Formats: sequence, structure tokens, C-alpha cells
Amino acid sequence: MAKKASSRLEWRINVPDGASKVLEPESGAVGKIWVGLKGCMGIIVLKVWRVLENAWHIGVADPRKVIHCIKVGLALSIVSLFYYMRPLYDDFGGNAMWAVMTVVVVFEYTVGATFYKCINRVIATFLAGALGVGIHLVAEQSGDQLKPIILGISVFLFASAATFSRFIPSVKARFDYGAMIFILTFSLVSVSGYRVVELFELAHLRLSTIAIGTSLCILVTMLFCPVWAGCELHHLIHQNMEKLADSLDGCVTEYFKENGSEKDLNKKMQGYKCVLNSKAAEESMANFARWEPTHGRFNFRHPWKQYLKIGASLRNCAYCIETLNSCISSEIQAPPCLRKHFSNKCMKASSYSINVLKELVITIVKMKKSSNIDVKVAEMNFAVEELVDALKSLPTTHFIATTTGEESTKAKAEGVEGSEHPSPIMKVLPLVKVVSMMVEIATRIGGVVNAVEELARLAEFKAAKDGKPKQNQPTDKLVADH
Amino acid sequence: MAKKASSRLEWRINVPDGASKVLEPESGAVGKIWVGLKGCMGIIVLKVWRVLENAWHIGVADPRKVIHCIKVGLALSIVSLFYYMRPLYDDFGGNAMWAVMTVVVVFEYTVGATFYKCINRVIATFLAGALGVGIHLVAEQSGDQLKPIILGISVFLFASAATFSRFIPSVKARFDYGAMIFILTFSLVSVSGYRVVELFELAHLRLSTIAIGTSLCILVTMLFCPVWAGCELHHLIHQNMEKLADSLDGCVTEYFKENGSEKDLNKKMQGYKCVLNSKAAEESMANFARWEPTHGRFNFRHPWKQYLKIGASLRNCAYCIETLNSCISSEIQAPPCLRKHFSNKCMKASSYSINVLKELVITIVKMKKSSNIDVKVAEMNFAVEELVDALKSLPTTHFIATTTGEESTKAKAEGVEGSEHPSPIMKVLPLVKVVSMMVEIATRIGGVVNAVEELARLAEFKAAKDGKPKQNQPTDKLVADH
Repeated sequence: MAKKASSRLEWRINVPDGASKVLEPESGAVGKIWVGLKGCMGIIVLKVWRVLENAWHIGVADPRKVIHCIKVGLALSIVSLFYYMRPLYDDFGGNAMWAVMTVVVVFEYTVGATFYKCINRVIATFLAGALGVGIHLVAEQSGDQLKPIILGISVFLFASAATFSRFIPSVKARFDYGAMIFILTFSLVSVSGYRVVELFELAHLRLSTIAIGTSLCILVTMLFCPVWAGCELHHLIHQNMEKLADSLDGCVTEYFKENGSEKDLNKKMQGYKCVLNSKAAEESMANFARWEPTHGRFNFRHPWKQYLKIGASLRNCAYCIETLNSCISSEIQAPPCLRKHFSNKCMKASSYSINVLKELVITIVKMKKSSNIDVKVAEMNFAVEELVDALKSLPTTHFIATTTGEESTKAKAEGVEGSEHPSPIMKVLPLVKVVSMMVEIATRIGGVVNAVEELARLAEFKAAKDGKPKQNQPTDKLVADH
Repeated sequence: MAKKASSRLEWRINVPDGASKVLEPESGAVGKIWVGLKGCMGIIVLKVWRVLENAWHIGVADPRKVIHCIKVGLALSIVSLFYYMRPLYDDFGGNAMWAVMTVVVVFEYTVGATFYKCINRVIATFLAGALGVGIHLVAEQSGDQLKPIILGISVFLFASAATFSRFIPSVKARFDYGAMIFILTFSLVSVSGYRVVELFELAHLRLSTIAIGTSLCILVTMLFCPVWAGCELHHLIHQNMEKLADSLDGCVTEYFKENGSEKDLNKKMQGYKCVLNSKAAEESMANFARWEPTHGRFNFRHPWKQYLKIGASLRNCAYCIETLNSCISSEIQAPPCLRKHFSNKCMKASSYSINVLKELVITIVKMKKSSNIDVKVAEMNFAVEELVDALKSLPTTHFIATTTGEESTKAKAEGVEGSEHPSPIMKVLPLVKVVSMMVEIATRIGGVVNAVEELARLAEFKAAKDGKPKQNQPTDKLVADH
């Protein structure tokens, strides 16, 4: 007791402001738990709030996502009628569940993905159902002892084989979902065939409910604000091309600018990162796009694979721009007079390269062959040649000499030792890097031009009607390697 | 008739070799169809054969994939026992279907993916089931007229909300499958609740069969040759690091080699492309890895996210190697004497850079802090400094002069005009590019070192026991920007 009293005393003494109050340990523990709970609640509320805020931004940024959610709700409500309406329920009974399930599982954001899943699901269900019933009939003949063994072995074999097929890239790209549904239906049919008497009835009901579910999905996804995977891919490619042009512009402007960095410029420069990271998105969209029927300006057999090639050539450019970007952020910069000397030519080369990219963007957006892409490529090549010539004429003549002369007199005037400031080649180095990157980028833009022209050929783009006669000048698309 | 005869006559005349035979159109058509069919069959057989060949190669390359298929078959066979064995079937009846379905849908290649799906499925089914039953009870109170309306509206709202949640990146990464199962279960429970009387019984049976299915999957996936997503990620990262080192080695060797290109070298050089394309794989593995329990040397809370950062820094290096690679394939090369001058220093810098990468590979493989990484980084930096110094001393001194002198005398001897062969800077340019890329690559390897050291800190790697005292020399990890 004495100890307790003393500890209380200590307590009373140690707490500076609460000296008049006797603190009770019990209420303290409760209080701590209460504070802890409040803290936890606060964190949870904050997290939920952040997720909601995030969701709001996503919805505002792309209202089609909100529309997609409404479409899912709508499709589910319609398919629920099979339960709510007496006559429909009498036809299908509990099997109406399969229609609901199909809608939930099959309804995807893009039309292509929905088609892919629907077609896979229907065909796989049909095949697996037929196979399952066939094996069931065989097993039926072989007596009660052998029946579960035959069924079990067949499930094991087919499930293993179908699972393995999902590892084959060509199968995975087109029939991954189908393989899964095949396993599912086959095992359900052959396993439940062991107990269920009316197997045909079951298979027929399941197939028809799935057909109802899939056709409902296809109708809803195509009729209400459809989102076509093909269109998305088309947009992604030309947006990436624009981003690349902007990045190139931003990088070169940033390097040769006179004043401090602008905020907008910095954001603009980062566009190439999107290009670097869009491979997976492009591939999945191209996979889905080929399931889509003719829509808008796209035929059923539109060459979607060529978009992947354009994407790859864009990424090829983006690698170079990434390196260019690192040149810019390098600490040692070329002396101002040298930069001024190159500034114009570099800006010219970059602006002509950007012109080519923008022309390609227009070609893709309008889906019409450009009449003056050859001219623009020639201009780009010419500007790059000029840039290279400027570089060639640099060190042999007086330039380096005068610069070093200037610099050394300056250095002497400021009392800096000559050995400390960088040697001539180090001064030219950043510029040489930027110039050689510009040349490389122009070469790779040539690759993009080729890929887009191949697309125009495959997709039979019409010639643009702007009436300008096609100039017949000799232009080779690829800048010669320097 | 006359016309027909004349056409036959024409036929007979037009066919040069078959003049003696009267060609019968009918049998010709049949023959054509037969040939066409044979052709089709041939193509199909060829395609199937190719797929099978492909499958064989996949199986040989990674036998774990074959084992995975056997595991799926095994799990399905075990779960089929619920149908084949009388007492089990009596307990669950047709609901045993859900167990089969769960196994098919949930069983994935890696343990992490299986865990992710299992946990998501169980929790989502429980939540949606409880919510569905709750709303069903509320709807029950409000009369037969309002009941389907309340149920329909609730399905619409919850399905839309859950669908939208799948667009939020943080939810998509962890709970995408859960959201789908939530929609599925919720709509099934609330819709079938309209007709089914024993809803509790149904919900309970469904939940218990799903629990059986998921626990079976988890057991099978963990007990028989488990494939851990975390281990895969770990391997992928250090394999990529090795590939990067090999590519760097290959590129530099290829550039400075004296004789023709070797085949092995070319294959070795392409390793960086794997690094460029492995972002999606890394992300999905990291997502799955965090669901995995403690296994081998990895704890439950192993810092998998840090692997993504290492991956990003590796890709950063790979961009540079890509540019370096394009320098190599450039047409204009530096004159041999210049190349010889730089060959040693460049090879030295690259071999020290490769040493650093290899040391990092050992750090990751052994999961032990390296005792001499600092030394190796210092060596790399020193070699790079030497390389830069060599570059610095290049143009001011006699080098260019003598080279151009040599070249011009050579050119004169060969009768080539002086204006045609490239100017001095153009001769140095490819070398300058290679050297500056080497410097940049060393800088970026510094980034990889930092990321790996952060991993060692987060995952609490132990110090290596090789007994060497840690040298206390001043090394800054990042090579200064030149």
C-alpha cells in the first residue's frame, strides 16, 4: 500500500499540470485504448476518404468508366428478370443462375474483351459439354465399377492437357479463358454426370442460359456507349506519338533555353515515360481488338498487329529520348558560345523531326495517306545533315582555339588555375552527345515512318485529298548512319 | 446444247496436255474440292504439329509447368471424390459443384497467385453472402410488391460500385478478383433469394464448399513442388542483372574486337532486351508475392516492392545499353589507332562495371551484404575517371594531328580525295559516344547499387562471413556526372 501511495505521489509530482488531480491507472488504460481506437478509426476514415477521392478523380478523368459500371448494373438487372418473372423462371429454374454468372464474369470494359470472353465461353462450354457427355456414355457402358475410374482419369487427363495449353503463348493470347472454361465445364459435366440422371437436359439448359447471358452482354456492351479496344489502341498509338514529339521538343528547348526551367516544360518532357511503359497495354488491346466486328473506320481484319510494330518503333525512339534527357540533366554543360552556335541547327533538326511525327499523327488520326510525308522526311534529313556538317566543321577550324583562348583569358582574369576548368573536348562533349542523339532519334523516326507506311498499305488508307501534287523528289526514308 | 458442246471443245483445245482426255467438269470439281480439303487438312495438321512441338519445348524448358498441370489434375480428382463417395455426396449434394468450380478457377501457377485468389474468394463470398442475406431480410419485411424492386436496385447499386472499385489502381492490384466474386455472390444470393426458401442453408453450403475447395488448392499448391512468386521474382531480378552484365560485356567486346562477330556474342548482347520487357512480369509477381507466407529465406513481410525499384534501375541501365548497342552497329567507326588507344581503358571500365553487377548478383543470390562492394564501386569509378581523362587528353595534343596526318597520307597514297573521308571530329565521334555511354552506364549502375543496398537494409541481409575486414576508403557510390 505504501508503495502504491508513493508511486501515486510520484505520479502526482511528475505530471506538471495535473498536480491537483489524482490520475487513476484504470481510466488511463481505457483512455489509451480509446485514443488508440480513435487513431485507428481516423486512419481508416482517412484511407477510405483517399480511395474515394481517387475514385472521384478517375471518374472525372474518364466518364466512360462510370458508364461501364452503369452498364454492368443494367445487364445484371435485366438478367435478374429470369428470376423475378414467373414464366421465365418456370422455363429455366435454378439454371438461370448460369445466366447471372455469365454476365458477371464475361462483361468487360471493351467490346473486344467482352467478345473474346463470350466466344471463348460459348465454344468451350459446347466442346467440353459434348466431350463430357460422350465420355459419360462410354463410361456408362463399362459397368458401375469402372465408371468412376474412367470418369476420374478422363478429368485428370483433359484438365492437365488444357492447363498445359494455357502455357503456350499463341493459345494463351487467344484462348486462355476458353481453356479455363473447358476445364470447368468438362469436370462439372463428367463429375455431376455420375449422380445427375438427366445429363442432356442439364447440358442443354446450361448452354442455353450461357447463350442468353453472353448475347445480353454483347447487346448491352455494343449498344450503350461502346468502348472499342481497337479505337483505344488507335488512340493510344497516336497519343504516344504526340507525347514523344512533345518530349523531344521539351528536351531540346530545355537544353538550349536561356532562362530557368518552366514547370510546363518539365511535365511535357516526361511524356516519353508513358511510351516506355505502354507495351503491356498495347498488346492486350491488340489481342482484344481482333475479336471486334467492323466498327467505325475499322474493318474486321484491320491490321492490329502492325500497331504493335509502330508501338515498338516508338519505344525505340523513346529509349533515345531517355538518353537525351539524361544528357540535359548532366552537370557540365557546353560553353554558351558553342551552344549558341549549335542551338539554331539543333532546334531546326528537332522541329523538323517533330514535324514528321506530327504528320504521322495526322496520317493515323485521319487514316489517310499523307501527301507530303516524303517532303517532311527529306526536310528532317536535310536538317540533320546540316547539324552533322556543323559538327564536322567544329574542331579543325579556329573555333576550339578561340573558345579556349577566350576562356583562358577569362580564367586568368578571375584568378582560376588553367588546369581546373575542363579541357576542350570535355566542353564539346555534352553538345556532341546531344547532337549525336538527335541524329539517332532522326534515324529511329525513320523507323516509325516505315512502320506507319506499312500500316497505311495494309489497312489500305486512302490518299489525302488536299490536292497537292505528290512531289517526285528523291528521298530515302532512313537517314544514313553517321 | 450447242453452246455447251462448244465450251467443251474450247476446253479440250485450251488444255495443252489433256488433249486426248475429255475433261469432265463434275469429277474435276470433286477433285478440286478433294485437293482443297487435303490442303486444308495438311495446314491444320501442320499447325497442330507446330503447337505440339512448341508445347514440347515449353515442357522441356521448364518441367515445373508440367508438374503444375499434374497438380491441377490431382486437385480436381480429389475434389471429384465429393461426387463419387456416397457419404460426402449426401452431405453436400449438388453444391459440391462449387468446390469443383473453386478448384478450377482458383488454382494458379504460383503459390502467391493461388493465395491471392483463395483469400479474395473466401472473404468476398462471405461479405457478399452476409450483405445479400441482410438485404433479403429487409426486402422480406416490405411486402411482395416492393421486394423485387428493392432486390433489383440493391443489385444494380452494389454491382456498379464494385465494378467501379476495380478501376482504382490500389484496389485492382490487391482485390480485383475479390470485387468480381463479390458481385457474383451478391447477385446470386439476392436474386435467387427471391425464389429459394432456405437461403441460409444455401449460403452456408456454398461457403463451406468454397472453403473446402480453397483449402484443397492451398494444400496441393504448397505441398507438391510449390512455385513461389517471391522466389520467381528474386530469380528474375538477379537473372536480369546477369543478362545486363553479359550484354554490356558483349557490346564492348563486339565494338573493340579485331576479327568478325561471333555467334555467341550476338546472342549474349541481346540480353538487355529481356530487361526492357520484364516490367509487367515483375509487377504481377510482386503483387502475388506479398500474399505468400514465410517460405525459405523469405519472410511474410519481405520488401517485395524494393525489387520493383531494382528492376526499374536495371531498366534504366538497359536503356543506355540499347543506345550503346546502336553506336556499335553504326557504319562509321573510329580509325583503328584511336580505337586501340581507347580499347584497353574502355574494356577496363566495362569489366569493372560488370564486376560491380556480378557482385550485386552475388549479394542478391546469397542474400548477404557484400563486404567489398564499396571497393568494386570505387574501382569502377576509378576506371571511368581514367577513361574520361583519356578522352580529355585527346584533342588538344598531337593525337588528332598525327592521326589526320597519317590518314591523309594514306588517302593520298590510295588516291582518295581529301574532302571525301570524314573530318577529325567525325572520326572521334563514335568513340566519344561509346565512352560517354560507358560513363552514363556506370552512373546508372550506381543507381542499381543504391537500390540493392536499400533492399539489403530493408530485408536485413546479414554481413557476408568471408572474414575480409571492411576497407574504410572514401567511395561515393555515384560517379560524378561528366
